[in-house]
Amino acid sequence: MDEAHILWLQGMFAKQRFMAHLGVEVVSLSEGRCELALPYRPDLDQHSGIIHAGAVAALADNAAGGAASTLMPMGSAPLTVEYKISFVAPARGQRLLARAEVVRSGKSLTHCESRVYAVDGGGETLCAVALVTLWPERIG
Amino acid sequence: MDEAHILWLQGMFAKQRFMAHLGVEVVSLSEGRCELALPYRPDLDQHSGIIHAGAVAALADNAAGGAASTLMPMGSAPLTVEYKISFVAPARGQRLLARAEVVRSGKSLTHCESRVYAVDGGGETLCAVALVTLWPERIG
Amino acid sequence: MDEAHILWLQGMFAKQRFMAHLGVEVVSLSEGRCELALPYRPDLDQHSGIIHAGAVAALADNAAGGAASTLMPMGSAPLTVEYKISFVAPARGQRLLARAEVVRSGKSLTHCESRVYAVDGGGETLCAVALVTLWPERIG
Amino acid sequence: MDEAHILWLQGMFAKQRFMAHLGVEVVSLSEGRCELALPYRPDLDQHSGIIHAGAVAALADNAAGGAASTLMPMGSAPLTVEYKISFVAPARGQRLLARAEVVRSGKSLTHCESRVYAVDGGGETLCAVALVTLWPERIG
Repeated sequence: MDEAHILWLQGMFAKQRFMAHLGVEVVSLSEGRCELALPYRPDLDQHSGIIHAGAVAALADNAAGGAASTLMPMGSAPLTVEYKISFVAPARGQRLLARAEVVRSGKSLTHCESRVYAVDGGGETLCAVALVTLWPERIG
Repeated sequence: MDEAHILWLQGMFAKQRFMAHLGVEVVSLSEGRCELALPYRPDLDQHSGIIHAGAVAALADNAAGGAASTLMPMGSAPLTVEYKISFVAPARGQRLLARAEVVRSGKSLTHCESRVYAVDGGGETLCAVALVTLWPERIG
Repeated sequence: MDEAHILWLQGMFAKQRFMAHLGVEVVSLSEGRCELALPYRPDLDQHSGIIHAGAVAALADNAAGGAASTLMPMGSAPLTVEYKISFVAPARGQRLLARAEVVRSGKSLTHCESRVYAVDGGGETLCAVALVTLWPERIG
Repeated sequence: MDEAHILWLQGMFAKQRFMAHLGVEVVSLSEGRCELALPYRPDLDQHSGIIHAGAVAALADNAAGGAASTLMPMGSAPLTVEYKISFVAPARGQRLLARAEVVRSGKSLTHCESRVYAVDGGGETLCAVALVTLWPERIG
């Protein structure tokens, strides 16, 4: 990816109002990889201090989209066909980090794995693992 | 479910700040079933006029939680262990409806299916199908 | 589907040696639907008298393939992109039945749901539910 | 795991007639990990020379079961609650290898990831990725 491609991808993220609404931040984008962060806010609660599975899953899915998009040509954006997510620990902490990578990039479909960590003090706890299937959409 | 149980469940929904943040409304709750609605707002956009997969999935998951909770004793709330969701059409319309039902309620785990429809004018379009595994948590 | 199409589909099933190896039988094929049966044999055991999840899942997946194939042109066969399966009860009985239907048939991808029942005496018990994503492959 | 535990696990595998029927071999078992092999046979075909998704998935699931069982006490065997599998490349080669590891081992549920590789000549090709949820069952 060159500078223009990265800028284009960042523009794509910026246009997703739902992600802005949640407060998602792009940490890094590289060939086949994406890291996103979501700072804790009471608005994200399931119940007191635990972030709702819906926010965890949205972050995991979006990180997978970011990773997939780095291997697609500019002008194409990844649509999520389906995903599965397992919640392996409560999402409690100052923020969530989602790290996604492309498992396999085919002609039409891209398969990604995404892991979400809760950052609490210095430590990270794995709280969700997702497998995501994506599809390129021309968005002009 | 008697009146007290339904009130208790509605209280549970009301406490989930993330659902309030999205704007989710409880349409109906009955033995093994739950219907939720999510009116369209630009905040929910993926891109222009299409609701983000993250909001669709959160609605599907929450409806499954609602359905599962109707078969759990008061004082227990369903935690989502994992789910898989397939996005079968774009979520475009005035609002989304999620209808979930319990497929199987076991001693420990409850399996639900949830379908999300986009309501546009008079018609409904199926836009997502999910299978959700839940677990009862004592919340006192 | 006309007679020629049904014959073509039955020929496709007959060519799958793994399905023959398990002992899978086609019960019915119609527009968007497929029913398959798998008679119990000790070879299919996980442990005494319970059919292995691997055989249950293979049956569910294959029924989804059958349902998807009824909506594809002759000369194309469905490849499974991915699936998720929940095992909701032990698979114990004289035989298994898998009933699959197309949830949504798109230009490229087909989404199916498949349910597997254990037939024991007169009764049927739902033992697995699957969501399957398929893709058409030209097989000449 | 001591010697007695490993022997007990190997005995468990040996009792699964369906796995023997497929021809699955235990390559290795260690704390939280399991590797299984499945040599190619025409009986496993989907069509000419490609191993059926059903056999790939059964191998992935069984490897997850093996990995989970290494963290369970003797006398408990893992039951698969559900899994999701993505097929990312055709399974073509002299044999398949499934490598599974425990992602998270909780009080009741164990989450594993399993990857299946096709070995063709000297090279390995990743052909499937699975996330598996398991549950301990007392088997006396």
